[in-house]
Amino acid sequence: MAITLGEIAKRFGGEVVGDAMVRVGGLAPLDQAQPHQLAFLANPKYLSQVDATRAGAVLIAPADLDKLTSREGRSFIVTPNPYAYFARVAQMFIDLAAPAALMGVHPSAVVDPAAQVAKTAVIGPNVVIEAGAVVGEGVRLDAGVFIGRGTHVGESSHLYPRVSVYHGCKIGPRAIVHAGAVIGSDGFGFAPDFVGEGAARTGSWVKIPQVGGVKIGADVEIGANTTIDRGAMADTVIEECVKIDNQVQIGHNCRIGAYTVIAGCAGIAGSTTIGKHCMIGGAVGIAGHVTLGDYVIVTAKSGVSKSLPKAGIYTSAFPAIENAQWNKSAALMRNLDKLRDRIKALEAAAEQRDSGA
Amino acid sequence: MAITLGEIAKRFGGEVVGDAMVRVGGLAPLDQAQPHQLAFLANPKYLSQVDATRAGAVLIAPADLDKLTSREGRSFIVTPNPYAYFARVAQMFIDLAAPAALMGVHPSAVVDPAAQVAKTAVIGPNVVIEAGAVVGEGVRLDAGVFIGRGTHVGESSHLYPRVSVYHGCKIGPRAIVHAGAVIGSDGFGFAPDFVGEGAARTGSWVKIPQVGGVKIGADVEIGANTTIDRGAMADTVIEECVKIDNQVQIGHNCRIGAYTVIAGCAGIAGSTTIGKHCMIGGAVGIAGHVTLGDYVIVTAKSGVSKSLPKAGIYTSAFPAIENAQWNKSAALMRNLDKLRDRIKALEAAAEQRDSGA
Amino acid sequence: MAITLGEIAKRFGGEVVGDAMVRVGGLAPLDQAQPHQLAFLANPKYLSQVDATRAGAVLIAPADLDKLTSREGRSFIVTPNPYAYFARVAQMFIDLAAPAALMGVHPSAVVDPAAQVAKTAVIGPNVVIEAGAVVGEGVRLDAGVFIGRGTHVGESSHLYPRVSVYHGCKIGPRAIVHAGAVIGSDGFGFAPDFVGEGAARTGSWVKIPQVGGVKIGADVEIGANTTIDRGAMADTVIEECVKIDNQVQIGHNCRIGAYTVIAGCAGIAGSTTIGKHCMIGGAVGIAGHVTLGDYVIVTAKSGVSKSLPKAGIYTSAFPAIENAQWNKSAALMRNLDKLRDRIKALEAAAEQRDSGA
Repeated sequence: MAITLGEIAKRFGGEVVGDAMVRVGGLAPLDQAQPHQLAFLANPKYLSQVDATRAGAVLIAPADLDKLTSREGRSFIVTPNPYAYFARVAQMFIDLAAPAALMGVHPSAVVDPAAQVAKTAVIGPNVVIEAGAVVGEGVRLDAGVFIGRGTHVGESSHLYPRVSVYHGCKIGPRAIVHAGAVIGSDGFGFAPDFVGEGAARTGSWVKIPQVGGVKIGADVEIGANTTIDRGAMADTVIEECVKIDNQVQIGHNCRIGAYTVIAGCAGIAGSTTIGKHCMIGGAVGIAGHVTLGDYVIVTAKSGVSKSLPKAGIYTSAFPAIENAQWNKSAALMRNLDKLRDRIKALEAAAEQRDSGA
Repeated sequence: MAITLGEIAKRFGGEVVGDAMVRVGGLAPLDQAQPHQLAFLANPKYLSQVDATRAGAVLIAPADLDKLTSREGRSFIVTPNPYAYFARVAQMFIDLAAPAALMGVHPSAVVDPAAQVAKTAVIGPNVVIEAGAVVGEGVRLDAGVFIGRGTHVGESSHLYPRVSVYHGCKIGPRAIVHAGAVIGSDGFGFAPDFVGEGAARTGSWVKIPQVGGVKIGADVEIGANTTIDRGAMADTVIEECVKIDNQVQIGHNCRIGAYTVIAGCAGIAGSTTIGKHCMIGGAVGIAGHVTLGDYVIVTAKSGVSKSLPKAGIYTSAFPAIENAQWNKSAALMRNLDKLRDRIKALEAAAEQRDSGA
Repeated sequence: MAITLGEIAKRFGGEVVGDAMVRVGGLAPLDQAQPHQLAFLANPKYLSQVDATRAGAVLIAPADLDKLTSREGRSFIVTPNPYAYFARVAQMFIDLAAPAALMGVHPSAVVDPAAQVAKTAVIGPNVVIEAGAVVGEGVRLDAGVFIGRGTHVGESSHLYPRVSVYHGCKIGPRAIVHAGAVIGSDGFGFAPDFVGEGAARTGSWVKIPQVGGVKIGADVEIGANTTIDRGAMADTVIEECVKIDNQVQIGHNCRIGAYTVIAGCAGIAGSTTIGKHCMIGGAVGIAGHVTLGDYVIVTAKSGVSKSLPKAGIYTSAFPAIENAQWNKSAALMRNLDKLRDRIKALEAAAEQRDSGA
């Protein structure tokens, strides 16, 4: 499965500098690569590793190529974005090595006769597809996936084992959904129906039926055990090319703008809108009914309770320090108004002294 | 499936003002409703929308009805709680539209002969029910649900796909458990059995067997991928009408009081007791072995490390602000005791000056 | 299933003080134990309960035994670590009571002919085992477990229902993995490949193929719905005897040192290394590419953004207080630099006054 630099450049673009007939059969980091491997320089601070590498060839940006001491006897593919180029070539080698696709429906799968499954789809063991569902060309549903009635799965999507997609949802083409993710579960909505106060309170929570769906655009990736609730009346919407990590929770009626990335363990409460090209850090919490503009970055562990319409970086998390020092600060923090009052008193006294002088 | 206002009022209470023969076939928000739909006014600030709505009728509270400019040619159902009323009517329309229930056990389900499954239960594909389990009347177990040995599922409960309930647990009637939830997994308990310190330490963690169960009251809802651990010796207890959102973690031997609601991504460590009618915000963390009284509200992202016996609202989370400003504050926060010392020094100097004068 | 103190001491060590022929059939806390039960004193503050207990015998440390008022007519097993001893004896009673193991493969399981499953393994209903997988002696795979191609599961491991282990992973012997856990899902890595800024930005995120695996040592326990991502190029590594609670997220290429415990809802971003014997509290977040030394303790809800090479206790979380007081402090916190500036101004004025005097 080795392939020449020339063939790679023909497929993915870029310019070969050196010997276009060099053959490589995989990728590796600069410091580990062997002569049959292609390495990449994604960060100029590792420039010196290019001189030392044993790699057969190196993916490099034009500006970095110019900085090399010598190109003597070496080969390169020059591209403005070596890291993205590396990712694409790596994927190609994986696809070349993959076992031939087994098309068709595993005999243990339970597919409703009123569901529509494309001929080129691969339906794994114990998959359940309900009536009215539509599974597109080239879709792969791994073991134990559940597709509820009327749900559409777009072409070339891959749902890993035990993904559950409730009824009436729509997943765009080329989605990747990792194991255990749940799409379309009920939003968390209850009307309080209580009378009386305290111990005398009687009544109950009345469930608000959740009749919207979840609509997921093209090229979305969703992490393992992530949950995305269906809308109450309208849909929850994930726009194209959103990338969501593991164990993220997205509440009902949220809208996540295109190209936004959301790191693991983040939670977004209901009816919140996040703009395009945002970056939501790990374990960030975002309140319901707020709006984040395009290009908003929220750093890890922060909490957002109000709308952030303007692009920028937002934070509300502290880095851990030694417990003893933290406890001292935390005790003072709880009564910061008292410190402020002491400053005020000092200022007032100084003022009085100055005016008295 | 249209139904008259009179029939609705007969079923759910309230008083029809206007034409009881108006027929509606569904619900919609005031600003989107069509003449064949029923709208609702849950918040008086939208009163003006009632005048403008095209809805066939409106659910409204008595006080709000009195504020309307005109009732001319319009119809209402008057009820003290239009939002809860809306929820109930919406559920009725969903039930009317639902396909006829398919009772019985799917041929792919694996039901132990020593399990007891009610005739009216609906057991989906690939469900596994172990020996000694009891599944009540009208229960619906969706695809891939697992019910461990000796576990009881109360009547009319609905467990969505891939819910796992370990052995020896009890779920009350009318529960709703969303996909991927796990009930009855082992609590996190290990006895340290080490000798020596630092690099010389040897030994191991010894697992504390978790032999309690999980006991869940009536009318509880549990969100997708939520986990509730079984007790170590006694049971973990979720009282009636508790509502739990997605990805919540509840440790062993917790007790959650009736009517309490817990928002997504909250985590409650072991042996903690939460009172009745509490509201636990999203991503809240509560330490183990603490007690929260009735009517305690903890706002989103806060951490609770001590008991909060008194009703009230508790907080320890900051809202995100611009990163540069935050970093300045955070650096000072880490050394708040130094700021305090500088204030002290100023106070001491002033004191000395005053006494010296 | 009752057994004498003498037999217990023979099996687990310790010294019987009193009557070695006393028979016990289970364990219970001191204040609830009956004469046919064994109790344990793990914490000296409950010493008075030993005098009052009805237990048939008590597990006790030598120092505590010496403090008892009287041993008259009572029996003990004396051991340096009664809590760990209790855990081991409790496990023995559970094993004695367990139904005889059903060895073999359930007919509904889908096992690839090119997988290798030990004869003594117990493969539950709807389990899926792909080609090249190796399942060791005495392994128990519960209903719906998925084992990807080439993955190894070490001897005597127990995977609870719906655990998904992707291809090319390795789980050591005696692992316990709770329901819904996902091991080996893709790490979260994308190369930005965009040109232009703001509304004019075009391009996409390019997925970095994740071709490493997950390597899990011996005696590891993993909680329900926890997720552990596979490495990008190298493996994600969990060393021996690590104990991980529910809903923990571990990113790609992390290494978690032996004997470390991680409490529920913690999240660890990619390429982070955690030392041996660490304790990571509940809902802690740890940034990517940092290193924690051995014996580091991070308290619950804290965030770690930099390496913590030194053993110690680290914190960055506040305990919740009354909301009104918190809000006052939080407002001042946001502008702590202004408080600092006011202190500076007071200091400068005092300085000037002093030098002017």
